[in-house]
Amino acid sequence: MGVRHINPEGLHRSPAFSQAVVVEQPAKTIYIGGQNGVDADGKVVGPTVGEQARQIFRNLATLLESEGATLANIVHWRIAVVAGHTFDEGVAAFQEAWNRNDPPPAITVHSVAGLGPGFLVELDAVAVV
Amino acid sequence: MGVRHINPEGLHRSPAFSQAVVVEQPAKTIYIGGQNGVDADGKVVGPTVGEQARQIFRNLATLLESEGATLANIVHWRIAVVAGHTFDEGVAAFQEAWNRNDPPPAITVHSVAGLGPGFLVELDAVAVV
Amino acid sequence: MGVRHINPEGLHRSPAFSQAVVVEQPAKTIYIGGQNGVDADGKVVGPTVGEQARQIFRNLATLLESEGATLANIVHWRIAVVAGHTFDEGVAAFQEAWNRNDPPPAITVHSVAGLGPGFLVELDAVAVV
Repeated sequence: MGVRHINPEGLHRSPAFSQAVVVEQPAKTIYIGGQNGVDADGKVVGPTVGEQARQIFRNLATLLESEGATLANIVHWRIAVVAGHTFDEGVAAFQEAWNRNDPPPAITVHSVAGLGPGFLVELDAVAVV
Repeated sequence: MGVRHINPEGLHRSPAFSQAVVVEQPAKTIYIGGQNGVDADGKVVGPTVGEQARQIFRNLATLLESEGATLANIVHWRIAVVAGHTFDEGVAAFQEAWNRNDPPPAITVHSVAGLGPGFLVELDAVAVV
Repeated sequence: MGVRHINPEGLHRSPAFSQAVVVEQPAKTIYIGGQNGVDADGKVVGPTVGEQARQIFRNLATLLESEGATLANIVHWRIAVVAGHTFDEGVAAFQEAWNRNDPPPAITVHSVAGLGPGFLVELDAVAVV
């Protein structure tokens, strides 16, 4: 596996994301479907972005561990937050879950009109091991 | 090609989607752009989510067949439905088109403010052969 | 690297996009996070879709050049425009930036409720070299 997080000269640099992530083969790619703040029974864990985001990071960790990976293996994630809610609590959840020594993934963030019933935030991802 | 659909212990399990799909190389990857309910002339086939979704699944089948693949090769799809419409008819179209013996893809669903003119639903996908 | 842009018989054909792009291995994949109309200091370059889209294409070019690639290496891009704005100026910016002799990428376009502060348009992409 060869994975490089790039932030070339001339582009804005942020500790919160990488501008792009380059994957050289051979590699194992994990396509992670939209994760929501639900427990193992599919029940929404709470009515706030913060609670749901923390559960999403737990679910991601569970998924990735089952493939011998961690959050650090995510190369791109896409976050959707329901309009009228900010992602501030989601950022806080990310900061709790993420090891700051790892280069962050590429990121896309949309405010959307809606998600599934009770969901305020959804996160899908591509991970590479 | 090695493709595994995973639903690890501790995550909600649903017949409608897989939590993630793992792709081991070598594999051929097909990036499918946003498909809409349009015919071969680009004309919208009808004013309902159901009609448009059925056409989308026909278009997907056409695309995949041209690469020796089927719907079962999709590893992740992302569905966008225009706000104010439910995806219920889209789910019905999926159930008609999908072979229940195949493990379902990872999925992301957003309700969005809008799509191209006349479009109520859009579906893009990554498939692996 | 083997990359083929496909538009099979029976699907609508447009000069603006390919229906799908097929990637045969080995290939290097670049996951490009949501790009916005910001300069190297992260400052939004202007209050119109056109200005922001032109900056996005410049940023994409910078990113891709740092990996020995060009816009032509993009296989799929996903565009989000804030509701109430059309993407017409974005299309014009694309036409300025894109070499018409290259087969266009697969595309997904959503009108979303919102993006980060000051952003009217966001574009993420997968490129293959």
